[in-house]
Amino acid sequence: MRTRHNSDGVINHDSDSDSDSMRCLSCKEEYNTRDAGTCKECYEEASENEEELKREIEDLKAKVAFLRFWSPLDHSYGRFTCPSFTDVVLIAADDGPDGTPVPAHKALLVSRSPVFKAMLENEMEESRSGTIKISDVSYEALRAFINYLYTAEACLDERMAYDLVVLAEKYQVKHLKAHCEKFLVSKLNWNNCLMNYAFAHQHNAKQMLDAALSLIIDNMDKFTKLEEYAEFVEKDPRLVVEVYEAYLSKQVNTAAHRDPSVKP
Amino acid sequence: MRTRHNSDGVINHDSDSDSDSMRCLSCKEEYNTRDAGTCKECYEEASENEEELKREIEDLKAKVAFLRFWSPLDHSYGRFTCPSFTDVVLIAADDGPDGTPVPAHKALLVSRSPVFKAMLENEMEESRSGTIKISDVSYEALRAFINYLYTAEACLDERMAYDLVVLAEKYQVKHLKAHCEKFLVSKLNWNNCLMNYAFAHQHNAKQMLDAALSLIIDNMDKFTKLEEYAEFVEKDPRLVVEVYEAYLSKQVNTAAHRDPSVKP
Repeated sequence: MRTRHNSDGVINHDSDSDSDSMRCLSCKEEYNTRDAGTCKECYEEASENEEELKREIEDLKAKVAFLRFWSPLDHSYGRFTCPSFTDVVLIAADDGPDGTPVPAHKALLVSRSPVFKAMLENEMEESRSGTIKISDVSYEALRAFINYLYTAEACLDERMAYDLVVLAEKYQVKHLKAHCEKFLVSKLNWNNCLMNYAFAHQHNAKQMLDAALSLIIDNMDKFTKLEEYAEFVEKDPRLVVEVYEAYLSKQVNTAAHRDPSVKP
Repeated sequence: MRTRHNSDGVINHDSDSDSDSMRCLSCKEEYNTRDAGTCKECYEEASENEEELKREIEDLKAKVAFLRFWSPLDHSYGRFTCPSFTDVVLIAADDGPDGTPVPAHKALLVSRSPVFKAMLENEMEESRSGTIKISDVSYEALRAFINYLYTAEACLDERMAYDLVVLAEKYQVKHLKAHCEKFLVSKLNWNNCLMNYAFAHQHNAKQMLDAALSLIIDNMDKFTKLEEYAEFVEKDPRLVVEVYEAYLSKQVNTAAHRDPSVKP
């Protein structure tokens, strides 16, 4: 910024494009008072703060890497043939009696799922036999499910995410359920919202339910034109009623917000 | 900001305290161009970035909470008497033959320590007997060590941190070692630096070694006056020589930096 002092000590700034301009400490571009953001002190504080958050992230990532249990399914860990002290196998019942068993550790299943805990600690059939049969699931989904319990990681596509929501709900693995719901919410669109709403309803997936309902309500004028609308009215009318109820409730609330004399 | 145009179109700013002043978007205080930090765009970007980092931290914390294995030592988890499917016990050999055993899972020990992995997977005495004797360690330190393998958490004081560095080095648990070293570095002072330097040397604790050496070299004029100096010259003179060598090397490097014609 070019400045000059005039005779009575008042600072004159040249009135061309860079009058009042300063250089941003972050992007190094010039800007003027109209586009000013923060003072230097706050900028420095924010930079330190950012560094600290980044250090915290590094520490947490190292902790996750340490706590990740190498999975008995993880062939890249050591020799494939190494004993891994597994004491239980899970079998996808859909595979029939000769389904490939997925090996695991009782202690880990118990630690991650209250349902496995109840099953294995209470001397039920599964605990005695060392075999847990899981119905309505493919081998691939079961394998991905068990792998998540060890590593908190899953390679998702939509099909797998739906399957894992079902398993996570059944075995009460909240962290996995939230992970899959987040993924499915990111894939939500007008074409799949009613199907997702019904799925979320059935499997108690609150995050998905809210997102799907919100999308439907925001486009209520097109609701009855949805391809599956008639099918749902026929098959599951209570679900459709709930959408209308939520829409009505939102309308009343909005009206009450605009005019406080209207009671919601 | 008060501005006025003079006759030839040049903007004059009043030269009193708030000339050129703007309001910081972060602290809401007024500041002038001299104390300017960032432009508005960078401020907004930084705020979004900060929010994103905070979300990442929340996600990672949830992941850590999920992956934390409830420890067989953790009495607060469920009933104390619940079976936890442990298949090995560790005993602090210092406690004598009747030492209290610390129960654990082979699979977890193998997952966290390459030394336990070699020991348990290779049908050594410990694997067959299901008992691992650990020498030169108290029951409390052994318990804290095993607990850390399950939870990545330890309640440290200096004594415990030293004990855990020794165990972490012996069983190659890098994450625990780094955690304890960080704690001990935070407790480093002039009175304990030589002792810490020797300890770090003995147990291959690089982080501590660098911090202690750096503190000594920065106060080299007082080095020979350290209480334990004579004792170390007597007991472990090579260690003292290494300090002198590091000091000399730093001096030569500093000289070379000041005068590039001096070769380090």
